[in-house]
Amino acid sequence: MSEPALAVIDLLALLAYGELQAFDQMADDARLAPDLHRRAMLSEMAAAEMVNYRRLEQRLTALGADPEEVMGPFTAPLGDYHDQTEPKDWYEALTKAYVGDGIADDFYREVAGFLAEDDRQLVLEVLHDSRYSQFACEEIRSAIAADPKLANRLSMWARRNSGAACPSIVDAHRAARSVITSSTTQDGNETL
Amino acid sequence: MSEPALAVIDLLALLAYGELQAFDQMADDARLAPDLHRRAMLSEMAAAEMVNYRRLEQRLTALGADPEEVMGPFTAPLGDYHDQTEPKDWYEALTKAYVGDGIADDFYREVAGFLAEDDRQLVLEVLHDSRYSQFACEEIRSAIAADPKLANRLSMWARRNSGAACPSIVDAHRAARSVITSSTTQDGNETL
Repeated sequence: MSEPALAVIDLLALLAYGELQAFDQMADDARLAPDLHRRAMLSEMAAAEMVNYRRLEQRLTALGADPEEVMGPFTAPLGDYHDQTEPKDWYEALTKAYVGDGIADDFYREVAGFLAEDDRQLVLEVLHDSRYSQFACEEIRSAIAADPKLANRLSMWARRNSGAACPSIVDAHRAARSVITSSTTQDGNETL
Repeated sequence: MSEPALAVIDLLALLAYGELQAFDQMADDARLAPDLHRRAMLSEMAAAEMVNYRRLEQRLTALGADPEEVMGPFTAPLGDYHDQTEPKDWYEALTKAYVGDGIADDFYREVAGFLAEDDRQLVLEVLHDSRYSQFACEEIRSAIAADPKLANRLSMWARRNSGAACPSIVDAHRAARSVITSSTTQDGNETL
């Protein structure tokens, strides 16, 4: 398999594992919801991640990859990020999702520009839709209006998240390089 | 609102909360999966519960009910059941889902027989599809083939689950009666 093809597989695998992890995280955060209406809302958003996951998994299979194998290297870096940034309450959960997803989505959107039309389209479509960001924004805004002190706490939390998100993107990128390196070595081709 | 209409709302509300709880439970159980493939499979099945939840919630709204309000009385009995039967590993999780959902589905299928055509159809459609039962069955069967001692442990676990499921159905039924009673009292109609 050519290096560009492997790089596309890595990117789609990272995104696929990201969807699985986002599902898990949002399902967990739904438990922090202050009422059944909000709990259902977040649970539904989590469920939507699995539709995206399935699309990415099908594309990986169509490209000749074993989804489980190619997602494997990303479990540790993304797991570390989530372990380091476990939200303690509903507003931290929303802030984390808003900031963390925002950074990740910006990164993927940039990278998508280098892909061929079909895969670019797929990546742009599976990026978090604005519905969740909007929901998170409105929730946080009205909570801060009711308790202005919350702004400080959430702003510290957002900074901590950005601090953890950037190294984990770097780690994920390193993991992707190692997949390409080991696969190309097995094929006897030139490594990166 | 007439008693039969309130009883239908109670049943749909119990089912709706059951879907929300099943989503939460399966999303949690997915973490116990021994590999990414199985984790994704269970996460997808959890996501499917939210599609069912949305259908029930929409029907409740169409019937003039506030979904959050009518689901309220069922959170405690279903929560108790899940707290009493927290699985310790992947096989206990599958056995619990297989046995617990089986008992609940049999109950709902019987009750559905008393509903008008549209609601009967809705209830039958949102009951757990056989895909999950089949998956659970195959997983458990092959695990027992590899380790015959597992059969004893899981059979004890299934009995404990049945023991907890039946009282919680009774409690849920009592909760439903209390909703009907309080609503009809407010309307000045005869109570159950």
